[in-house]
Amino acid sequence: MAHHFFLPIVVAPGETVLLEGENAHHAIRVLRLRQGESITLADSNGQGYRAEIVAITEGRVAAAIKDPLDSPEPRVRVTLYQGWPKGDKMDLIIEKCTELGVDRIVVLATERSIPRPDQQTCARRRERWQQKAHAAARQSRRHRIPVVDGPLGLAEALVKLRPDTLLLVPWEEERTRDLKSILATVPADRELALLIGPEGGLSRAEVDLACRFGGLPLTLGPRILRTETAGLACLAAIMYAMGELG
Amino acid sequence: MAHHFFLPIVVAPGETVLLEGENAHHAIRVLRLRQGESITLADSNGQGYRAEIVAITEGRVAAAIKDPLDSPEPRVRVTLYQGWPKGDKMDLIIEKCTELGVDRIVVLATERSIPRPDQQTCARRRERWQQKAHAAARQSRRHRIPVVDGPLGLAEALVKLRPDTLLLVPWEEERTRDLKSILATVPADRELALLIGPEGGLSRAEVDLACRFGGLPLTLGPRILRTETAGLACLAAIMYAMGELG
Repeated sequence: MAHHFFLPIVVAPGETVLLEGENAHHAIRVLRLRQGESITLADSNGQGYRAEIVAITEGRVAAAIKDPLDSPEPRVRVTLYQGWPKGDKMDLIIEKCTELGVDRIVVLATERSIPRPDQQTCARRRERWQQKAHAAARQSRRHRIPVVDGPLGLAEALVKLRPDTLLLVPWEEERTRDLKSILATVPADRELALLIGPEGGLSRAEVDLACRFGGLPLTLGPRILRTETAGLACLAAIMYAMGELG
Repeated sequence: MAHHFFLPIVVAPGETVLLEGENAHHAIRVLRLRQGESITLADSNGQGYRAEIVAITEGRVAAAIKDPLDSPEPRVRVTLYQGWPKGDKMDLIIEKCTELGVDRIVVLATERSIPRPDQQTCARRRERWQQKAHAAARQSRRHRIPVVDGPLGLAEALVKLRPDTLLLVPWEEERTRDLKSILATVPADRELALLIGPEGGLSRAEVDLACRFGGLPLTLGPRILRTETAGLACLAAIMYAMGELG
């Protein structure tokens, strides 16, 4: 299967474009692509194209844009609001949720989040997270790279929610409402948000706050899921329910 | 929430049981539990109980069995047949699929599996995998620990399939049949098997072989999932579809 790249510009069939920087490095050094090979590209509008490598020089790859590709992007747009977990778990969450079709990821500094880094560390971390999303989107041949934002406080994130967004809040203490009963009535192009606590979960005050912004607490069943599993399990279930998993 | 343990014996309310070995180590050294604390236990029949710690001595914990617990085990039984992936990915797959309610995991040495260890290494690896399943089942408070088997050859595994098992085979080259169309007609207590290739996927010959054993190739949609993501995404979707995710 053809290797995939993201371009920071808008392109059109018939044009010849340059892969530079990290794209060129990946094509030349990592994948060792040759002139004449087919690749796929997604432009900054999220439109994908088949393309052919027409020339390779030191640090740059020229590719001729061929016909457009059907979009693999899901119609349902899901933003994951993830309580910042310990260690490298955020990397795993970003990678897996990108594969599963997440639209955007916002890392939250919640009450029970352990990491409390300074601003400089946050900026470096955000850059690494965005690179993880890029690599995962390239690997799964998506046409858009999910934007990774944060870390934000919960209130700050909730204030920015669009009013028509359906906010889902998996919570251990919710016993009755579940994902299925909610998704049964949701149209396929509805904007969804998923709020997942860090290792210790969300506090009751945080769930109350989310509810004041329209959040719906729900149960994921009797088996306790770790923080890094809850988001991707919900996302897989949402994609399945919305007809986006095949 | 009470900490959870697995007992290798069958117990009943009113009895006092001993936690020994790794269970006692986990209770005393890792969790630092004290006399009077509540725990939960699952016995070798998969029946769960509330219990109370009545005594702690060097290396042993005595617990009094109280009332039985409702089972968190899903009615649908899913066996994951996973092509042995590179590195430590099998550990991640075992942990996540155990949380998501898998019944059994069989590691397969398929055509495109990279690891080719000798018998001794396989035995050590199997032991580690089983420990991973134990730890994940304890963490997610399941009442059964999934058995991890293998590595087996594909033919060897398929021959052992029970004839009434529905074998699902996610495959990149399948375009039309999807999980939803299959699960629409499956009763909640049906036995399912999920066959997932390693990094390079299943070969056409392997898919053909699976089909001769009743396997149904299906698409997971246009976004390419990594081998370690495919199984857990399917499992989450199956649990959702069967009403087991809340």
